[in-house]
Amino acid sequence: MRLLKRGVNGLGFAALALALVTALASDLHDPSPGEPVYSVHPIGWVRKSEGRTTIVIDERYQPAMLGVEALDAVWVLYWFDRNDNPAARSLLQVHPQGNPDNPLRGVFATRSPFRPNLIALSRVKILAVHDNVIEIDGIDALPDTPVLDLKP
Amino acid sequence: MRLLKRGVNGLGFAALALALVTALASDLHDPSPGEPVYSVHPIGWVRKSEGRTTIVIDERYQPAMLGVEALDAVWVLYWFDRNDNPAARSLLQVHPQGNPDNPLRGVFATRSPFRPNLIALSRVKILAVHDNVIEIDGIDALPDTPVLDLKP
Repeated sequence: MRLLKRGVNGLGFAALALALVTALASDLHDPSPGEPVYSVHPIGWVRKSEGRTTIVIDERYQPAMLGVEALDAVWVLYWFDRNDNPAARSLLQVHPQGNPDNPLRGVFATRSPFRPNLIALSRVKILAVHDNVIEIDGIDALPDTPVLDLKP
Repeated sequence: MRLLKRGVNGLGFAALALALVTALASDLHDPSPGEPVYSVHPIGWVRKSEGRTTIVIDERYQPAMLGVEALDAVWVLYWFDRNDNPAARSLLQVHPQGNPDNPLRGVFATRSPFRPNLIALSRVKILAVHDNVIEIDGIDALPDTPVLDLKP
């Protein structure tokens, strides 16, 4: 009976702790009442195949590429879509490079893919532009990552 | 009667053209069916007063600043909130610096504040950090602009 009770208490505590963590996480992730929320959507995608890396711009945004062909390099803003969940967006401190030997640092002082707004930033070299496809030298993004913006 | 008819036709044409432009604009701005939409929200605000420029981080995100005080400079990602409307987000080509003598260029080849996703990017020098307030040398953003992210 004592064992059973301890078991139930243990389970109850774990459930309570989980509920608390979830509540805290969603509290951090959710905007405060009255806080603005803005929407962003992909204007293209990172594609990787046969050793080539390209940014394929959605055809309806192709007019926005006029002049990109004249640039040597471009800033790419993209979305860490694999981390788009309340837990990953609530993590405010990390061990850089995921190495527990590195002291904790705030995500605003790191390039961690865990952050409140999952925007990533990379400078890439432009190799060629054909229609809506920009061939680049490479990017530290997973294949099929949504791209939000390009800037000179 | 002919004048009246012409007037009505003219008005009809103008209304039709306006409806068409609005439809095209909202067509560009709205995500395609099935296209993902991501949400971002301010983690702080650009404040300007008495010749000082600061980024005031929302207190609940203050833990994410750990280590920012050790940086000399930081990338600031912010939101062009004054342009958050379908028309400004549908403009794909601009005359750079708003000067009609400059040939049209795609917004992805410019730093225009009109773009599909209204994310702005500036590198700023950090002068001091006190609690949740980062004093910077200046930023090309309007006062009270929402800040989305900081990166080293």
